[in-house]
Amino acid sequence: MDELSKYDANYVPLTPITFLQRASSVYANRTSIIYDSTRFTWRQTYERCCRLAASLRSLNISKNDVVSVLAPNIPALYEMHFAVPMAGAVLNAVNTRLDAKNVATILRHSEAKIFFVDYLFIPLATRALQLLLDESQGIPLVIVIDEIGAQKGTVRSGELEYEQLVKNGDSRYVPEEIRDEWDPIALNYTSGTTSAPKGVVYSHRGAYLSTLSLLLGWEMGFEPVYLWCLPMFHCNGWTFTWGLAARGGTNVCMRSPTASEIYRNISTNKVTHMCCAPTIFNIILEAEPYERRQIRTPVRVLTGGAPPPASLFEKMESLGFHITHSYGLTEATGPALMCEWQTQWNRVSILTLADADVKNLETMTSVPRDGKTMGEIVIRGSSIMKGYLKNKEATSMAFKNGWLATGDVGVVHPDGYLEIKDRSKDVIISGGENISSVEVESVLYRHPRVLEAAVVAIPHARWGETPCAFLAVRKSSEGNMDDIKEGEIIAYCRKNLPHFMVPKKVEFLSELPKTSTGKIQKFQLREMGRNLVNSNERKQIATKNGRPLAQANKFDSDRHEKILPTMSRL
Amino acid sequence: MDELSKYDANYVPLTPITFLQRASSVYANRTSIIYDSTRFTWRQTYERCCRLAASLRSLNISKNDVVSVLAPNIPALYEMHFAVPMAGAVLNAVNTRLDAKNVATILRHSEAKIFFVDYLFIPLATRALQLLLDESQGIPLVIVIDEIGAQKGTVRSGELEYEQLVKNGDSRYVPEEIRDEWDPIALNYTSGTTSAPKGVVYSHRGAYLSTLSLLLGWEMGFEPVYLWCLPMFHCNGWTFTWGLAARGGTNVCMRSPTASEIYRNISTNKVTHMCCAPTIFNIILEAEPYERRQIRTPVRVLTGGAPPPASLFEKMESLGFHITHSYGLTEATGPALMCEWQTQWNRVSILTLADADVKNLETMTSVPRDGKTMGEIVIRGSSIMKGYLKNKEATSMAFKNGWLATGDVGVVHPDGYLEIKDRSKDVIISGGENISSVEVESVLYRHPRVLEAAVVAIPHARWGETPCAFLAVRKSSEGNMDDIKEGEIIAYCRKNLPHFMVPKKVEFLSELPKTSTGKIQKFQLREMGRNLVNSNERKQIATKNGRPLAQANKFDSDRHEKILPTMSRL
Repeated sequence: MDELSKYDANYVPLTPITFLQRASSVYANRTSIIYDSTRFTWRQTYERCCRLAASLRSLNISKNDVVSVLAPNIPALYEMHFAVPMAGAVLNAVNTRLDAKNVATILRHSEAKIFFVDYLFIPLATRALQLLLDESQGIPLVIVIDEIGAQKGTVRSGELEYEQLVKNGDSRYVPEEIRDEWDPIALNYTSGTTSAPKGVVYSHRGAYLSTLSLLLGWEMGFEPVYLWCLPMFHCNGWTFTWGLAARGGTNVCMRSPTASEIYRNISTNKVTHMCCAPTIFNIILEAEPYERRQIRTPVRVLTGGAPPPASLFEKMESLGFHITHSYGLTEATGPALMCEWQTQWNRVSILTLADADVKNLETMTSVPRDGKTMGEIVIRGSSIMKGYLKNKEATSMAFKNGWLATGDVGVVHPDGYLEIKDRSKDVIISGGENISSVEVESVLYRHPRVLEAAVVAIPHARWGETPCAFLAVRKSSEGNMDDIKEGEIIAYCRKNLPHFMVPKKVEFLSELPKTSTGKIQKFQLREMGRNLVNSNERKQIATKNGRPLAQANKFDSDRHEKILPTMSRL
Repeated sequence: MDELSKYDANYVPLTPITFLQRASSVYANRTSIIYDSTRFTWRQTYERCCRLAASLRSLNISKNDVVSVLAPNIPALYEMHFAVPMAGAVLNAVNTRLDAKNVATILRHSEAKIFFVDYLFIPLATRALQLLLDESQGIPLVIVIDEIGAQKGTVRSGELEYEQLVKNGDSRYVPEEIRDEWDPIALNYTSGTTSAPKGVVYSHRGAYLSTLSLLLGWEMGFEPVYLWCLPMFHCNGWTFTWGLAARGGTNVCMRSPTASEIYRNISTNKVTHMCCAPTIFNIILEAEPYERRQIRTPVRVLTGGAPPPASLFEKMESLGFHITHSYGLTEATGPALMCEWQTQWNRVSILTLADADVKNLETMTSVPRDGKTMGEIVIRGSSIMKGYLKNKEATSMAFKNGWLATGDVGVVHPDGYLEIKDRSKDVIISGGENISSVEVESVLYRHPRVLEAAVVAIPHARWGETPCAFLAVRKSSEGNMDDIKEGEIIAYCRKNLPHFMVPKKVEFLSELPKTSTGKIQKFQLREMGRNLVNSNERKQIATKNGRPLAQANKFDSDRHEKILPTMSRL
């Protein structure tokens, strides 16, 4: 078998840019983007991206420079997913829910050369830039994104504006050739609940393969109409920014996923697909009658997280939504595992490009396929990030065993399905028994009055730890909130759970504390839980019981940013 | 943007072997193969492949050795698509319709170390091996594949048998690690109608990406039930050998695609998908009543070739087959372009991984998108072969312009669809006008009596060339074959074609000459056509008119082996 070399005709570096180039040819006149009354075709989108890329180059953007953007799901953010890499640069879509301090941290760490800011986020951007100036840091060149088609913009004289760059760029621009598919294409920061945000870098190859993997995994066919409920700054919209171009679909953009906007867009534009966090389900289900529209054709929904109550999914299905469940993390370019909605909500099969296993991290051996033995979920594959920007230690730590440890605990069933049990640090160890907080929560969610539930460990003199439940509840039919008591919840749990798993304490809150990405902050609840335990008890438990699972997890389990962690709940 | 290295966790070389490994885990207990009463699960298939690979290693097969196989669509041939690369070797599935001379040529050229032979093909293999021995060539180690589960096999003492190797191999075998995804996985010979067969080499990367491309292009979802009508030795079954593992599907194997076997398998096993040459449509439609079964759920069919008569497809659709049309070549790992069945049959969109264009090969500029200007169809992408085995000249020639020239002529429509017009050497140039032989044939096929049609150029004193039609016809309702005359066909063509495109001569044959892969041999027809022209005429046309299209095609247009060339017809 002689050596055969690579040629331009048979070795084409993998990059999502080719999806747009193909779409501009194959789907030339199909609608690429709908945003209120604005409409583009794929040919126009490609031309606009060429122009924007040309303008970026004329602003001295060069290979591997970072271009940051602070914007909701508007056409400009979609276009930048192609235009920025077409200029050879790296896209950094910043979470719009962050505070100025976090935005400043990201701009500093990424060394962004250009910072695009949607006109509504100018106040937040200004505060972040001021923080950098206060530290005598350099700041990126700021470009405002005005409302598209707005009569009177917000741009002051001397400022650069997005549409100007598109307009002034050369449409004959030839995209920067990606010679090495391992080159970076995007940089996404973890939200950093307990530590500084980490910059997760994706390669062109990884982005390309993840995109195909998700199209295959979700069986997304040709020419979908996709509603942008999931922020594009979440793992580049779980790669569907690129995937919509690969499928010649239509991107339905909207600034904010309100009930009326969701219903209106689904109905008017005949939406076929959407991704979202489960919180969106509540928005949809609790919409006022005047906000609702009939959903005539089924909408396929990709979501994630731990088992929400079956009744909620039944309600969604009855409205015309067909739900697929996924599990993933920023480090894996979004969803890595997926399953159709079923009673065993948490059992997911592995997507094409991710290899997953459940291992004992001490021995790196796989757990038996008995549906019982817990271990840490580990993944590997072409969808996994290149690593963390300017953080070699965290990167080599993350990859040291040939697998990426997720910080989640699961079991493998005899049929090969993987069931996610909990975040490893959220497992409660009571009298030597492992209690999955997720399991307790899933029972609590089935209680008709429970709106939000989170279960954490609190110290206990005898058992080491016991479960403590934090709940937000619905009003009763009489409009009362405070008619439901701890005793009722505990009695209900006793009926539905083994005794050792029943929460010893139940606390009611008007709302559970959440991060900027909508995750329930269990570390805050643990803190609150500890304060509930009286000081006497605390003395007795100064010596904490061993926590085999937590110990087995040698990594900082906050390292990995779950896109829909098991705790992200309705 | 600092440099981030590759790790085992995030850089996994692309290889179809991973599809089987994943299937053995995710689809462990699902049926992988059905062959009469034989059934395997994906876990069993993986274990059998591990055992076979281990046995191959113990027979001294090492990295990049070629393992040839001569077999129909039986489980062994399917398993070898994984087991051979799992041993680090290269699979060479030989066309069972070849003669002994061609088989010998392939064994000699490929330097095959092992030659698996299905028991029914022992006579052919024996003749081929004898030819090698007559030339004092070394011969490969021969391993017989007996009918699986046969009580009394055909293997003589001292001979090796397939099931023995599977049985004796170590199930704990760890597949050869593919460190470089550019390594070869398969070797497929072109049929070599006019020249020696060429060995087309696929890489692991190319096979992997082609597989995903075809799954996406055909929108093949999870757990299909796939009937093996298309020989696996055709571009590895257009990559669906590997694709079925990626989707956790069921392979329904059968030795021979007869009407009764096709109907029985579709009905009994609830087949959802099949690929086939259009010749299979006739087998299905002309089945005897006792061979037929009701087809209860739709069967999706992927086929290819030039526009067959719409009525035929309507008949297929009415039986419950939903047809997708493709265009491809061995050099592109099978289908590269695809479209749903539509009236404009020949208009195909480009698959995810292939970039296609229509170019003037002299200037390498794209033809205008006017649906009129003809040029040569060129393709590039990750699905394109590595090159030709031991034929550096042909390889570098094939790739010299950064594109692979297909030898086919097409146009591009304003909407981006590509229409295949003809093989460049089959275009007829009459009085300076280009006539697509395919276009004339498609009209002929619409004639109720026409069964097979092929149109070739014959020399003409005034026009340079004129079209000549060769036809095989159906019996009339009275059972006559010879009641249809040249005049009737010409009159029919005059009604349906511009005059310059009407064949000047019509010849009736009982059957058109075909290659071992079922293609009509136009070069033989051209030879026959020349003999029809009288010698007087021939003198006058000694100086042949220029043929701009054929001249523009600098390559030997027989170089590329179409999997379903425009000429492959019903």
